[in-house]
Amino acid sequence: MQRRDLQTELAFAHRLADAAGAVILPYFRHAPDVENKASAEFDPVTAADRAAEQAMRDLILAERPQDGVLGEEFPLHESRNGWSWTLDPIDGTRGFIAGTPTWCVLIALTYESRPVLGVIDQPHTGERFSGHDARAHLELHGSQRDLAVSGTRSISDAILATTDPYLFEGREAEAFSALRRGVRLTRFGMDAYAYALLAAGGIDLVVESGLGPHDIHALVPVVRGAGGIITDWQGGDDFATGRLVAAASRELHAAALGKLAL
Amino acid sequence: MQRRDLQTELAFAHRLADAAGAVILPYFRHAPDVENKASAEFDPVTAADRAAEQAMRDLILAERPQDGVLGEEFPLHESRNGWSWTLDPIDGTRGFIAGTPTWCVLIALTYESRPVLGVIDQPHTGERFSGHDARAHLELHGSQRDLAVSGTRSISDAILATTDPYLFEGREAEAFSALRRGVRLTRFGMDAYAYALLAAGGIDLVVESGLGPHDIHALVPVVRGAGGIITDWQGGDDFATGRLVAAASRELHAAALGKLAL
Repeated sequence: MQRRDLQTELAFAHRLADAAGAVILPYFRHAPDVENKASAEFDPVTAADRAAEQAMRDLILAERPQDGVLGEEFPLHESRNGWSWTLDPIDGTRGFIAGTPTWCVLIALTYESRPVLGVIDQPHTGERFSGHDARAHLELHGSQRDLAVSGTRSISDAILATTDPYLFEGREAEAFSALRRGVRLTRFGMDAYAYALLAAGGIDLVVESGLGPHDIHALVPVVRGAGGIITDWQGGDDFATGRLVAAASRELHAAALGKLAL
Repeated sequence: MQRRDLQTELAFAHRLADAAGAVILPYFRHAPDVENKASAEFDPVTAADRAAEQAMRDLILAERPQDGVLGEEFPLHESRNGWSWTLDPIDGTRGFIAGTPTWCVLIALTYESRPVLGVIDQPHTGERFSGHDARAHLELHGSQRDLAVSGTRSISDAILATTDPYLFEGREAEAFSALRRGVRLTRFGMDAYAYALLAAGGIDLVVESGLGPHDIHALVPVVRGAGGIITDWQGGDDFATGRLVAAASRELHAAALGKLAL
C-alpha cells in the first residue's frame, strides 16, 4: 500500500464534513414543503444532497487530484493511485425529510476498494463519529472521546436496530423476524446513525439489507475502530450483497449470523 | 378559570426543563453498561428518571406550593387550586438506553386536568419545543422560531410516525397497518419527539396507543399551538384511552380517524 498518514487524511475528512454540513443545514427543516421530494417542484433534499456532494468533490479535486470519488449523486471519478473517497452527503433522506436529527453525512477513504477511514457526521447535533487504524472517536462541541462497543454477547441481552422492518423481503424478512423476537428491544429508523450508536456502546446489533457502497464504506472503520464486528450476512466482506450485520462482540455476531442464514 | 399569565408559567417550565436536563445528561451514553435497565444492578435510566423528577418536584413545591404534580416516578401530589404539573422526566427510555437523541423531558401545566401549556425538551440537542395559547415555538441555541404544521391534507402525501409498529394489538394493529400502507412514508422510534416534529412541519401524522397521561399532556398544547389536531382515536379528548392521533390538518385527521375506527 502506498503509505498515507491517516491522521492527516482524517483532518481532511473533517474539512469535507464541515463543507457538507454548511451546505446541508440551511435546507434542514427549511419549510413545510421540504417534504415534496416526490413532486416535480423544487426538491430541497436533492438540492442539498447534490450541492453537498459537489462541495466535497471540489475539495478532493483541488487537494487530492489523483484520488477517486464514488458518490451517490454524480458519476464515478476513477482513482489514479488506488485511493478513493466514498461520499453519501445525506444518508437517511427519509429521516431528513421528517426532520429527525439522525440523518448523516458519510465519508470514507478506501484503498483498492477497502475502507480504511470513516466519518459519520450529524451536522444538526454536532456529533462527528470517526474511525481508522483500529480506533474510533466521537467529537462533540470541541471535546473528543474514545468509542467502544458494549461487548454484549447474547441475543437475549441485545438492543437491535434496523432502519425499517418493512424493507426486508421474503426470506430476509423471516430471518429478521426470528432475530427480532429474540432480542431485548428493537429500535427503528436510524440509518447509518445506528452504526455510530453501536460504536458508542448504546446499540448492540444492527442488521440491514438493500444498501449501496456509499451507505456502507464509512461505517466499517467506525464500527471496527470501536471494537465491533461488521460483515455481510455470510460473515465476509462482500458488501456488494448490500446486506450488513454489525455486532458489539464476536459472540453476538456469530449468534446473529446463525439467525440470518438464508 | 383562575387566571395565570402563561408566559410566566412558561418561563417557570423552562426552569423545570433546565433542572431536569442538568440531572439527566450526565447519565446519557454514560457507559456501555447503560443498557442494564433489566438487570438488578445499578440502573442509570431509572436513577436519572427519578432524580430529574425529584429536581422538578422540588422547584414546584418551593415556588408553586398549591399546584399538584402528576409524575411518572412518584405518587400523585394533589392540587389545591385546580392547577397541576404533569412530568415525564425521560419520555422514550428505550431510545435513551440505545443512545438516540430523541428521548424528551415532558412538562405540562394543566388546569382541571386540561393541558394548557406544554414543553417537549431534548437536552442533548438543545431543542426545546413549547406551546400555549394557540402558539408554539422552538428554541435552539438561543434563537426562537414559530412552529407551524405542514398542512398536508391527504393520507397518500403524509409522513406517518409511530414509536413501534409491534406495540399495537389485535384490531389496533390491523387499523395501523391499513394506515401505514396508504401513506407516503413511515418513521418509527421517535416517542414524544414525533409530536414535536409534527409541530415543526416535518411529520404529518402520528398514531399511537398504550400511552399514559404523563406521556400525553405536554404534547397537546405543542401540537395545537402549531395548528395541528390531536385527539383520541374517536376524535375526542378522552386521553384515558391511551390512544392518540395527531395530524397536520383537519382533513388528514378526519381521514386517519376513518382508518382507525375499531
